[in-house]
Amino acid sequence: MRSIEIENLDANAFDTFGNVIDFRLSSPRVINQGMCLRFSDLAELGHDPSGRLGVSLFKARLHQLPYVFKMVERHPLGPQTFLPLDGEPFLVIVDEDMGGQPRGHPRAFLTDRYQGINFRRGTWHGVLTPLYGSGLFAVIDWIGVASNVDEFWWPEPWIVGQDSI
Amino acid sequence: MRSIEIENLDANAFDTFGNVIDFRLSSPRVINQGMCLRFSDLAELGHDPSGRLGVSLFKARLHQLPYVFKMVERHPLGPQTFLPLDGEPFLVIVDEDMGGQPRGHPRAFLTDRYQGINFRRGTWHGVLTPLYGSGLFAVIDWIGVASNVDEFWWPEPWIVGQDSI
Repeated sequence: MRSIEIENLDANAFDTFGNVIDFRLSSPRVINQGMCLRFSDLAELGHDPSGRLGVSLFKARLHQLPYVFKMVERHPLGPQTFLPLDGEPFLVIVDEDMGGQPRGHPRAFLTDRYQGINFRRGTWHGVLTPLYGSGLFAVIDWIGVASNVDEFWWPEPWIVGQDSI
Repeated sequence: MRSIEIENLDANAFDTFGNVIDFRLSSPRVINQGMCLRFSDLAELGHDPSGRLGVSLFKARLHQLPYVFKMVERHPLGPQTFLPLDGEPFLVIVDEDMGGQPRGHPRAFLTDRYQGINFRRGTWHGVLTPLYGSGLFAVIDWIGVASNVDEFWWPEPWIVGQDSI
């Protein structure tokens, strides 16, 4: 099995794939008579105009390291934002596109507490892989009639975090 | 001071004002090879077409009970969704509209763990009032050029949760 090392989630490293949603990366505006800081507009949400954005909840089973996978997917019609609702880290697997297929160099990022992520429209990514906590996430993505998912299966599996146990 | 009792957040009671975002209120679809439940499209996000929806983070100072306020606000151009990122309850103050002003019968709801809310476009509501935790919320609302906030100040304050201490 081909092995992938886990990287800490970093906005620069992740920029190819989407946005890191983290208040520590942004300058706030003070609102509510000084009682609240607003860090505005942290995700690129451009999408196909045949649908609209919606808010959903995902409740995922927890996964364990080392984590083995053979599949990535992408949503051609819109972005997909994941916001963990219990402040627990989760694993984010992505790959670049090359001619309509994943490039074959997937990367695995581990979020920090309170970080969310947004996959830019069409980004190849693994399924939701929480490692701790409730597995409950808010998700913003495209809602519409057309099919919005492509899957790609590698013949051989990848293994993530083999050295972390 | 006029006193307001705290109600537990209930989707039927809150329906006048917006949506309760709670996976326990919805039927899921199984995704990701059985590893994840998807509870889809839980908030009404209709908005003025001169702008778009964005994801922001709000970091609010904690408030304490009893909580005193004189002001509510509303966003005429779009909805506003609040998702607590640490699974802690928060207070939600709302009032109905009557001829362009709040009706003068504000209500105060306390969320359960893992509940978010969405204010329907134009709903009068209090400022963000977390009582516990980090005060960190993901917010989905309208991003655009025009002004998107009306404030209303009552001459006399309201007090919330006077009996809860």
